[in-house]
Amino acid sequence: MIGIVAGVGPYAGLDLLKKILSQTVASRDQDHLDIASLSQPEEIADRTAFLLGETTVNPAYAMTNQLLRLQKMGASVAGIPCNTAHAPAIFGRIQRGLEEAGSQIRLLNMIVEVGYALQRDTPAVNCIGVLSTLGTAVTAVYPSILEPLGFEVITPEKRLLEDAIQPAIYDPVYGIKACGYATKTARDKLMLGVQHLKEAGAQAIVLGCTEIPLAIRDKQVAGLIVIDPTLILARALIFAVNPQKLATQ
Amino acid sequence: MIGIVAGVGPYAGLDLLKKILSQTVASRDQDHLDIASLSQPEEIADRTAFLLGETTVNPAYAMTNQLLRLQKMGASVAGIPCNTAHAPAIFGRIQRGLEEAGSQIRLLNMIVEVGYALQRDTPAVNCIGVLSTLGTAVTAVYPSILEPLGFEVITPEKRLLEDAIQPAIYDPVYGIKACGYATKTARDKLMLGVQHLKEAGAQAIVLGCTEIPLAIRDKQVAGLIVIDPTLILARALIFAVNPQKLATQ
Repeated sequence: MIGIVAGVGPYAGLDLLKKILSQTVASRDQDHLDIASLSQPEEIADRTAFLLGETTVNPAYAMTNQLLRLQKMGASVAGIPCNTAHAPAIFGRIQRGLEEAGSQIRLLNMIVEVGYALQRDTPAVNCIGVLSTLGTAVTAVYPSILEPLGFEVITPEKRLLEDAIQPAIYDPVYGIKACGYATKTARDKLMLGVQHLKEAGAQAIVLGCTEIPLAIRDKQVAGLIVIDPTLILARALIFAVNPQKLATQ
Repeated sequence: MIGIVAGVGPYAGLDLLKKILSQTVASRDQDHLDIASLSQPEEIADRTAFLLGETTVNPAYAMTNQLLRLQKMGASVAGIPCNTAHAPAIFGRIQRGLEEAGSQIRLLNMIVEVGYALQRDTPAVNCIGVLSTLGTAVTAVYPSILEPLGFEVITPEKRLLEDAIQPAIYDPVYGIKACGYATKTARDKLMLGVQHLKEAGAQAIVLGCTEIPLAIRDKQVAGLIVIDPTLILARALIFAVNPQKLATQ
């Protein structure tokens, strides 16, 4: 059974579930894989707020508990559809928490899976632009994993992150987390980031926050290859439980 | 916590989850309700096949076990996004199974909720057309609940159900269960049913199979009011756990 820590955020959890279904070879209900999706967002503090020091509560503890609940439900492999949760201060704490609890659940690392997918599927791409929250950017979530694999990683400069990308995700009126879909304002702000990364030399754009795929749905944007970590995680989860069920790309 | 028996079918479970999120008052991840969605489709026999006598395995037993698992996860209220599962031979067996297990989970009846919603929201409507699987139609799932509430219920004649509605849902090539979205063929076949029900005097159309809302998304179709049981169940589940979180319609 696949387990999903679905509350980070709830629409990202929904998007991951949707992508697991769409990437599964199935022609009847009964052909689909077993999936437990647990959304308990209230007890998980905002990941970016923790990384920026705005709260001292590490959201790792709540996510670890939810992973243990998913294991109890029968999940043998699990994913967390939140890039910011993959910052070492959070993801490392989750991994240690699972070890301390003697857990057997296999937690996939979405960022590592993105690295593997880039090497496998787009060998000609070297310079990767990452659109993300401030938390993911300042803790170098993507560079710390992709640079050792030989990729050059660029992120928008801090002012652009603060004025455009972060509000596209978080604004309580037009942000994707509040609306559950991409408003025109959110999309326009994200496109500023795409243009900036393109001008800086990016050949591909990683949608480095799981809310961004709700705004950028095509395989290319502004002529650049789009890399969707949620889709890559969905495929990796299917492959982990039953490779024969993985649809061709 | 809301529990969802999400494997009947998996795309209907996804649609219910999506509608719970969209009907919740929330501007941050943490504002959303706790939801456990358990999709274990393989162990649940096809509901229509059971009702038509093509299998003797009552899918009620597997669904009862899944409800007990959801309760163990913390769910206090639950829903099953499958109209056919609400046929008395199945739903009654689930209710008895929960009683026998001493379960405290509050299982909502989606069809009863549709009846309440019709009385509350569309008091001028009397004649209801129901688009559904053969299993839902032959076991009179909707008439048995809506007629005692004073509604007239009409369903497409059997040949139309067999030649158009059932394949729109189940066909392994173009059916909604196989594709996870509504192909043009599936939509065209469902529209034959809508036209038939309109000519027979229906004032509103109940999308009486949880795959149909993937094809008919508007609030009106062919001039008739569209009643989406998945949306009604989503709102009833939110209301059951936290009325203040229910968005205005």
